[in-house]
Amino acid sequence: MSNDRHDEGRRRFMTGLGALGLGAAAGGLGVLAAGATGAEAAAVEIPEGSWPYKPLDPMKARKLGHWGYYQSSCSFGVFNSIVTCLRDEVGFPYTVIPTRMMTYGEGGVAGWCSLCGALNGACAAINLACDKEKALCDELLKWYVQHPFPSKLSNDLAANHQFLVDKYKSDKVLPQSQTGSPLCHVTVTRWCKEHGYASGSKERSERCARISADVAAKTVELLNDYHAGKFASANDYTDTTKQCRACHKKGKDFDAGQWTRGKMDCGGCHIDGKIKVVGADHYPPS
Amino acid sequence: MSNDRHDEGRRRFMTGLGALGLGAAAGGLGVLAAGATGAEAAAVEIPEGSWPYKPLDPMKARKLGHWGYYQSSCSFGVFNSIVTCLRDEVGFPYTVIPTRMMTYGEGGVAGWCSLCGALNGACAAINLACDKEKALCDELLKWYVQHPFPSKLSNDLAANHQFLVDKYKSDKVLPQSQTGSPLCHVTVTRWCKEHGYASGSKERSERCARISADVAAKTVELLNDYHAGKFASANDYTDTTKQCRACHKKGKDFDAGQWTRGKMDCGGCHIDGKIKVVGADHYPPS
Repeated sequence: MSNDRHDEGRRRFMTGLGALGLGAAAGGLGVLAAGATGAEAAAVEIPEGSWPYKPLDPMKARKLGHWGYYQSSCSFGVFNSIVTCLRDEVGFPYTVIPTRMMTYGEGGVAGWCSLCGALNGACAAINLACDKEKALCDELLKWYVQHPFPSKLSNDLAANHQFLVDKYKSDKVLPQSQTGSPLCHVTVTRWCKEHGYASGSKERSERCARISADVAAKTVELLNDYHAGKFASANDYTDTTKQCRACHKKGKDFDAGQWTRGKMDCGGCHIDGKIKVVGADHYPPS
Repeated sequence: MSNDRHDEGRRRFMTGLGALGLGAAAGGLGVLAAGATGAEAAAVEIPEGSWPYKPLDPMKARKLGHWGYYQSSCSFGVFNSIVTCLRDEVGFPYTVIPTRMMTYGEGGVAGWCSLCGALNGACAAINLACDKEKALCDELLKWYVQHPFPSKLSNDLAANHQFLVDKYKSDKVLPQSQTGSPLCHVTVTRWCKEHGYASGSKERSERCARISADVAAKTVELLNDYHAGKFASANDYTDTTKQCRACHKKGKDFDAGQWTRGKMDCGGCHIDGKIKVVGADHYPPS
């Protein structure tokens, strides 16, 4: 990349963030520290294992999560938020990570609506800063599936225009739903149907921006706790999941039902009376 | 990190790979280029946007994908495979990416069995090397959900001990299933139930190692095509998905059914007669 292109990118980025009062604090779609190039850069030593950590500010992560959603959606929003906080507190090596690398997670991977992009971005950031990434990711997902979103705090910040974007898609206090699942498809559908919003509505977008804020802040809290030696699981799997997993879990006994695996809420898809079965008269559509 | 620790990590890694005839070619859990540290490293300039590309070898990616599965499971396996190929062909800036950052994707994120980890690792690598990441990720998922796995090629390589690990969990020619879904839970359960293997069986692990190989190779083919100006979608969404999406897609009209979104196969969960509904007599388990 030429210096011109780099300077242009940096300028464009700084311009956007200058208006938000963040100065150099927030990361962008690229990584912008300038200096060593060529042979020096090629020989950079990146620490093995999880990277250094300093306590981060959950409110800063929350605001950057919301801001990042409006730059390049949920997955980038959360990943960029946490990596930016880490850059500001720790600096290198977080400065070498191009936060745009997680944009693919939008809409549960390119709109497939599998894993919630906010969770995907959060877990990738956890993995950089923690060597017990699976314990923290597990806790994050347990919390996510069983709490109402958007949180009251993010609702209040949005309604009072305390987030960092100039224009909200909506500044309403939005209704809450439990996501019930780490899957984008399930969380979006549940919220939209319960509250009468279309999936392409401004309110649904703003709901996901606030969830990006909530997930970024929670992730920082988990990382802070972990590095302070205070991490302990405060959430559990759903009752349905625990009951089903009495038999149906990863294991070696096929006949005992161990032909499956997973921790998602089984009742979301499998339990009679709860499943949204579509009748033959509805399919194919007329 | 001290030089001692670095050297130790490098030595340990090289020892493991030396036996495989790969020399310095394959990446490890850390990033191992040695040289600039401190102020120089902190000032490294990382290119904005997608990174430089050179054509990669799908067979090398396939073998490294299988190898990486046995180091740290599916998501790391595929991500490490592709980034290693990129390091070997392009070098910097891929040398600064710690491939261990994707280990969280194992088992659909810490065993939750959401997004298949092989896909998660592949998409993250695509995002580094391509600025049309969503088009390529979309194509990868379309291919993944509708083809039988493990592929004949990976089955043959395994049965003939042509992969890079010393000991396979199984060298059987494994039976194939369509995954039917980008979700770990669905693909594992379908394969296990269809073929009588437990989810914790050696054969299921080896099946996922071969899928990691298949996904790494396919991803490299997609990236090669894209950078040669030859990328075109060769796969489509499932018929069910297309029919349902006639109404049920992301959009602004709630009353028309646009209260949901997604591209996963709707029939996997929603269509009467296909859903694995569990009767009340089965729940809760006795």
